[in-house]
Amino acid sequence: MNEAYEKLKQQLGEVSDIQGAMSVLMWDQLVMMPPGGAGVRAERVGTLTRLAHERFVSDEVGELLDELAPLQEELPFESDEASLIRVTRRDWEKRRRVPADLAAEMARHASQADKAWVQARAASDFAAFKPWLQKTFELKRRYVDCFEPAGDPYDVLLDDYEPGLTTAIVEPVFERLKEGLGPLIGAGGDAAEAFERGPFPEARQHELSLFVLDRFGFTGEDWRLDPTVHPFCQSFATSDIRLTTRYAEDDLSSLFSAMHEFGHGVYERGVSADLERTPLAAGASMAMHESQSRLWENLVGRSLPFWRWAYPETQKAFPDVLGDVELERFHRAINRVRPSYIRVDADETTYGMHIILRFELERQLLAGSIELDDLPAAWNAKMAEYLGVDVTEDRLGVLQDIHWSGGMVGYFPSYQLGNVISVQIWEKVREGIPDLDEQLERGEFGELRSWLGEHVYRHGRKFTTGQLLDRLVGGGIDPEPYLAYLNDKLSTLSPV
Amino acid sequence: MNEAYEKLKQQLGEVSDIQGAMSVLMWDQLVMMPPGGAGVRAERVGTLTRLAHERFVSDEVGELLDELAPLQEELPFESDEASLIRVTRRDWEKRRRVPADLAAEMARHASQADKAWVQARAASDFAAFKPWLQKTFELKRRYVDCFEPAGDPYDVLLDDYEPGLTTAIVEPVFERLKEGLGPLIGAGGDAAEAFERGPFPEARQHELSLFVLDRFGFTGEDWRLDPTVHPFCQSFATSDIRLTTRYAEDDLSSLFSAMHEFGHGVYERGVSADLERTPLAAGASMAMHESQSRLWENLVGRSLPFWRWAYPETQKAFPDVLGDVELERFHRAINRVRPSYIRVDADETTYGMHIILRFELERQLLAGSIELDDLPAAWNAKMAEYLGVDVTEDRLGVLQDIHWSGGMVGYFPSYQLGNVISVQIWEKVREGIPDLDEQLERGEFGELRSWLGEHVYRHGRKFTTGQLLDRLVGGGIDPEPYLAYLNDKLSTLSPV
Repeated sequence: MNEAYEKLKQQLGEVSDIQGAMSVLMWDQLVMMPPGGAGVRAERVGTLTRLAHERFVSDEVGELLDELAPLQEELPFESDEASLIRVTRRDWEKRRRVPADLAAEMARHASQADKAWVQARAASDFAAFKPWLQKTFELKRRYVDCFEPAGDPYDVLLDDYEPGLTTAIVEPVFERLKEGLGPLIGAGGDAAEAFERGPFPEARQHELSLFVLDRFGFTGEDWRLDPTVHPFCQSFATSDIRLTTRYAEDDLSSLFSAMHEFGHGVYERGVSADLERTPLAAGASMAMHESQSRLWENLVGRSLPFWRWAYPETQKAFPDVLGDVELERFHRAINRVRPSYIRVDADETTYGMHIILRFELERQLLAGSIELDDLPAAWNAKMAEYLGVDVTEDRLGVLQDIHWSGGMVGYFPSYQLGNVISVQIWEKVREGIPDLDEQLERGEFGELRSWLGEHVYRHGRKFTTGQLLDRLVGGGIDPEPYLAYLNDKLSTLSPV
Repeated sequence: MNEAYEKLKQQLGEVSDIQGAMSVLMWDQLVMMPPGGAGVRAERVGTLTRLAHERFVSDEVGELLDELAPLQEELPFESDEASLIRVTRRDWEKRRRVPADLAAEMARHASQADKAWVQARAASDFAAFKPWLQKTFELKRRYVDCFEPAGDPYDVLLDDYEPGLTTAIVEPVFERLKEGLGPLIGAGGDAAEAFERGPFPEARQHELSLFVLDRFGFTGEDWRLDPTVHPFCQSFATSDIRLTTRYAEDDLSSLFSAMHEFGHGVYERGVSADLERTPLAAGASMAMHESQSRLWENLVGRSLPFWRWAYPETQKAFPDVLGDVELERFHRAINRVRPSYIRVDADETTYGMHIILRFELERQLLAGSIELDDLPAAWNAKMAEYLGVDVTEDRLGVLQDIHWSGGMVGYFPSYQLGNVISVQIWEKVREGIPDLDEQLERGEFGELRSWLGEHVYRHGRKFTTGQLLDRLVGGGIDPEPYLAYLNDKLSTLSPV
């Protein structure tokens, strides 16, 4: 190719290497590290963050981008080269506004606050976590100030996860969801059946997860699955994918977490190997990522065709608990609408309300229009209003999520937008694979994975969510297919 | 303190952070990484190695060291500050001679060759590993050429692990050992008893290791113990110590590996926290490190007093195998001299011969006086001569060790020097703790750990092996106490 382009790729490769090392440090910290390692680890992460930042926002990268502008014009929009130059410029212009010291301070704070959060959550002690949270939002305000937000200051944070998305776009989608989800939540809520509480021995849950993931496409060659406090997925290369999950004897949530994280992992696994060690080697956005985790968790993993295949093996794993439970009763139970405390355990219908609550509180916290002392009460009031749930302990309420300790403010909306987008994409999958249900019933997921790989995964970050969605469905984010899907599903679930 | 000193510490802290990140990457690679991650991982490690190297050998560090020379003179030799300046200068002058590209190439090669070694070892396929080994030694020769060796070229490699040590010092020590160990090996060799082959269920071995390590001072707060192919210890901070071990149903070697790696770990754990994130935050040398792993593995872990405490629990763990075996018979079995293929499984007496063999072959390989095609035959001939062992498969011979794939040429002598030094130090421990045996019999290891912490661990890299040994025993490396210890032990082992 071109000398400047090769130079740019080399420089970006180094940045990728430093960031990749940080990913390993973060994964190790959450999955493996003894608590004593936290202090020094925070220093390491701070230094690497600064190094990666400095090298990425350097004048040299800017000059190479200028030099490569004509090449970008010449080449097709979706070529690897034009995309790399275009997306790198967008990132470069954005990050250049953030001083290296602030970036390092945010990373160091995130690393330390995470440890504090783990302890505060275990002790259900919001007061112990409050100073860390205060600092998180102070840093976020300083971060927002690096930009000159035209609209809502929250737009700056949203844009980190959803390039091009604004509060003005999100708010009406969420208002429509609130309106559409409310009646469904009111209509659900029959009591849990005894079999839903297990006991499900943890070792068998692990085996069952691996049985399902193996058919999905998980292999020991490129993947790992480990237990941790809060399930997540991280990739260190397109062929080194780490999933984590958590086990509880009294529910089967680990299986759904595993399918969820698999959806994130298979996205990263499917990014074209040609994009490795470049800024394009990741998902298009957090919402697009979440659309894939939700697709595998819910549209596949809570569907009746899937369970026609998976249920016999599940009964074999837990014969005492599920031996006498018919498939349709089990399927109804895993799809029942039941308001609860914990977002990651929430059903597809109530989930949106958890997100809308966080979206509203984050905006208030950023604006300073709510005191931190009042946050648990505000959280609990919204839980009562939106879901009819009475939160009695902060570990089941405001302390449940890792995001605010990790500095990931503005991230939550992506989750619900992912749900919405997942159904928009699913409609296209059904057009592309007419016998999809029959394949799922046979435990065959290869064609589904290939379709998604071809239309979504391989592009990595070449397109924004808006661009990719427009290519796929010829339009923008639309909550109606999602609401229709929920209405349809809930009305057709077999009664007890 | 002084502005230049603070600047130096900051610069060295950054280098430590990059190196610490590399350690996490290396540990993850050996313990956790799915095979698919190897290619990109090698790039990451190569980039970080280069970054750490560039920052450490920078002119800026040199200028700060010059500026700080008067401060070093003023302060006591063993002060943190004078030691940091002195040891940093030694490292800086040495590493400055190695071009960044060569350092990165060595790291990248090590990372890839390690993967090739794992496969070649599993297949016992020396031919598959040969090209990697050839490259290892080519790189080592280029490395040696960066210096102007006055004596043996091998001195350059030795000095990386044992500052100040030369082939001329090592050779006579090893010749004396060959002479002294030969008759002991001839005298041993009674056949193994049935109970030595187990079966010892792996899960119980793991529990037993944790039972012992827990009393030694291992805590979940600062340590981890994981299974891997080749046991090792790595520390990511003085309070983040990772031990690895391996389990086999048909022997108890995992326990001795665990005690061995604990010895390495407790050394790193005991380095003064004031030295954290500086070049002093490590052991004095590899031999000094090995003296501590051997002290805990052998001088503690194969002693009769230790087993008076540990044996009842061991019998409880394996009642079918050991229930009827008396303590003295067990103790004799774990101390029996029995020539064998594998270095890490070798007894205290034959171990030295394994090292001397490697020392001799490494010198020939570096000098190019042996062809790689002839290496397995040469290995096997020496095994027959020194130990009377007939090596039939390369996985039990030349392919058994990780060192040459990892580029660690010149490292092996440290192991045997560590054995020798461990007994020199042990004589001093006995003077300092007169009732040591009684403490071991009660499973009390706190005073021993404190003594070693005070006299050895806390100093980190402040002193060379020679300086530290001189402070401790008033002399240099002396093989006689080690030979006397072995003679004494073997002559007093109770007969069958």
